[in-house]
Amino acid sequence: MEGPKKDQILSSFCNDEKLIHQSKHLLLELYGCDYEKLNDESFLRCSLDRAAKLAKATVLNLISNKFEPQGVTAIALLAESHISIHTWPESNYSAVDIFTCGQNMMPKLASQYLIEALNAEEHSLRIIERNPPAEVPKKNRTFV
Amino acid sequence: MEGPKKDQILSSFCNDEKLIHQSKHLLLELYGCDYEKLNDESFLRCSLDRAAKLAKATVLNLISNKFEPQGVTAIALLAESHISIHTWPESNYSAVDIFTCGQNMMPKLASQYLIEALNAEEHSLRIIERNPPAEVPKKNRTFV
Repeated sequence: MEGPKKDQILSSFCNDEKLIHQSKHLLLELYGCDYEKLNDESFLRCSLDRAAKLAKATVLNLISNKFEPQGVTAIALLAESHISIHTWPESNYSAVDIFTCGQNMMPKLASQYLIEALNAEEHSLRIIERNPPAEVPKKNRTFV
Repeated sequence: MEGPKKDQILSSFCNDEKLIHQSKHLLLELYGCDYEKLNDESFLRCSLDRAAKLAKATVLNLISNKFEPQGVTAIALLAESHISIHTWPESNYSAVDIFTCGQNMMPKLASQYLIEALNAEEHSLRIIERNPPAEVPKKNRTFV
């Protein structure tokens, strides 16, 4: 079997500045968060749902898992990609992803909401532009 | 309500080079993929499960959604974070995330597998170091 191609950045696929910016992936690290909130599966599910709505995204499914002795993962499958949160309450830390692909998305509103909802004392936000072919972000996804 | 703190990188939280490198987030763009495979929900679910195993991760839940007229999202909730794939078969494109946090993870094996499984003609791989507090990656998550 032929091996994978060498890792590369493919600028030829992504030549429309406006369209590229409609496919954003926010990587958010939250520090100094409230232990109880980071360990509350139900609260985190609700928070993800609320964050998705603020981003103008549509939640199609939402799953979560409670770890022992503490910690939660919750993931919302969106019509426009996904939002996830992984928490380590013992370190007052959580790692959040907000990946939206589509028109009129507001992922930064979702990140601002989660920063406040989890009482994060400090945070780090990286905004990554994903690199779909130019035609992809033109249209929002439809679902049944 | 007090607004969110200014975005910032918090080097003081992450002072152990070896530990930081155990929390990797791979952002993989796949181009020129096989249309049928990108539109095959069952195949993609199996591929994600296989990719997780290659990464030495444990799948705790796996959800997916088929879009109309084409396209699939599949997300695996891992004991060690998550793997996701969003596909646009009409553009022969998919966006993959492989986020693993824990000891002895092999996320790059998962990415190599998906590049081959989807017959990607070209790809772009970005490896992002997440920034947990130093104590987080020391231990793998336990689950029930």
